[in-house]
Formats: sequence, C-alpha cells, structure tokens
Amino acid sequence: MEFIDVILKRRSIRAYKRKNIPEEILMRIIESARLAPSASNLQPWKFIIIRDNKAKQEIARLAKERMWIADASVIIAGVATNPDYRMGSGQSSSAIDIATAFAHMSLAATDEGLGTCWIGSFDSDGSKRFLGIPEKFLLVGLLTIGYPDEKPGEKDRKRIQEIICYEKWSD
Amino acid sequence: MEFIDVILKRRSIRAYKRKNIPEEILMRIIESARLAPSASNLQPWKFIIIRDNKAKQEIARLAKERMWIADASVIIAGVATNPDYRMGSGQSSSAIDIATAFAHMSLAATDEGLGTCWIGSFDSDGSKRFLGIPEKFLLVGLLTIGYPDEKPGEKDRKRIQEIICYEKWSD
Repeated sequence: MEFIDVILKRRSIRAYKRKNIPEEILMRIIESARLAPSASNLQPWKFIIIRDNKAKQEIARLAKERMWIADASVIIAGVATNPDYRMGSGQSSSAIDIATAFAHMSLAATDEGLGTCWIGSFDSDGSKRFLGIPEKFLLVGLLTIGYPDEKPGEKDRKRIQEIICYEKWSD
Repeated sequence: MEFIDVILKRRSIRAYKRKNIPEEILMRIIESARLAPSASNLQPWKFIIIRDNKAKQEIARLAKERMWIADASVIIAGVATNPDYRMGSGQSSSAIDIATAFAHMSLAATDEGLGTCWIGSFDSDGSKRFLGIPEKFLLVGLLTIGYPDEKPGEKDRKRIQEIICYEKWSD
C-alpha cells in the first residue's frame, strides 16, 4: 500500500474477527519494529507474542475487563528492558522506544489489512506477574492486532493550526 | 512510496544539505502526526516548527553543541501539554503520544525523500526557556528534518529471535 494510504487507513480497532494471522505476516509486522530507531540504538525491547486464547482472556481481564481484547488474533506486550536509562534531557527513553516500535507495528499491520489498538490501561503488576516479566523491566503497553470487525467513522482530530506554532510557543 | 520501502529507507540522518523544505511537504509531514493515535485521543501535543537559522543554532548549542542539528531545514519541538495525565497502567502517556507522532513524521519525511533524527539529549530547562514553553508542559523531544547529506550503512539491529518470545517472558 502507498505510505500515505497506510496513514489514512490506520484506525484504533476494538472489534475483531476470530481469525489467525499467518506467521509470515506477523513476522513482517515485527520486522518493521525491529528496524525502528531507539535511543542510542540500544533496542531495549522485548515483544511477547500472546496468541493462546486463555492467556488473551486473562490479559483482557487485567486490562479493565475489556473482553474484546481477547478477540484480537495476537496481543503484543511491549517490554522495556532498560527502564533506568535516561537520555540527555533527563527523561527515560523506555516509553519513547516502545511507542516508536509500536507505531511501526501499527502501520505495518494496517498495510497488511489488519487493525490494532494501543492498550495503556492495565493492571501493571498483575500483567507482569502473569507474563513472567522480571520485576526490573517495564511493561510499557499492549498492542492488539487482528482482522477488523468494525469500520470506525471519520477520525476526530484537532485542526492542524491548533497543533502547530512557529519558532516560539504560542497557544 | 510503498509502505515497506519507507520502513526500509528510514534512517537517522545527522548530516543535511542546506535547503528549504517546501511548505506543502512540511504540512504533509505534520498531517501524518495529526492523524496519529494518542491516549484517549486527547492529542495533547503542540509541535513548534523552528526554521530560523539563529534559533536552530541556539537549539543545537542546547543539544550538547551538536552543530549539525542547525543544518537541518527544520527542527520540530514536540511538547506534551498534559504531562500529568496517567493511563490506567499508572504511566504517563506524554512520551508515548509524542513518540508516536514523531514516528509518523519520521516515516512521512522518508516518504518525501527527507531524513530525520530524534534528539533526546538536550538541556531541557534551557530549551523550554528559549522556546517560550510554559513550565507546566514537557518538551519530550526534538526532531530534525532535512535533505540527507549522508548515506548511512546497513542498519545495525538485533536479530528478530532476540527481540521476541511467545506467550511468556523468556530471555
């Protein structure tokens, strides 16, 4: 698909057909994340690929009981393996690195005719325990991937002039 | 460009030709960020477009004196306007939202034949002061955009098997 069409077509999808994603498609999606940039190119990420039905249901329960999450073909858990690393600005790069990788995956999934949704609301300790993630690492987010079973309407977005300014801050 | 080619071609570029980016191209890049997802679709972002030469030099100085930054046609400052907002996981969504928007911009710039680089090392207080960003907001990162004046070699990345695991955590 042309890049611009991928950007236009990407939507957060919260209803999925129960259908498996072929392994080669899933690997192309992961590959797009593998090629994403990260702070100092440390690639401090591990992606847990969750496909087992019972495991997806447990994750859905841990994510505020939004059971549609379990209908996704795959849930990817994005784990930052260097949560203490700080960039020169003083900020942690963990969320930035995982978010960049997830953005690549979301767009790559769209390119394959799939839908995705970022899940940022979940019981962090419970999910880490369930997935066996070492305490020292950070579970930044979850990404559902699957065949869309809904067609969301127009994107609801601010106008471009509301989100930019030139040279200096202005409201 | 086909989506997969954009993913393959995107590189972090640290040498730029001194050349202006036409306004319509810049707006297409911003548009790709405007359409990006954000936590609860709050779109808590403002992008300061910096093109003035003296301003770019000051930003470069504030970013560890990496003066190549000033050669970029444009520097985008990504400001999170709800730094106190927490997702259900307890984490802030600021870095995730700006990183997702910057990932869209980087790929959109690649699609236009441009190069970008995430700048995460900068004097945060000094940069906010210089750009007039209110204290309560967070300057998450800077993104340089311009015409590449270098051709980086192969991407240095971990193998796919190092970054994934199935169902549960494993090293």
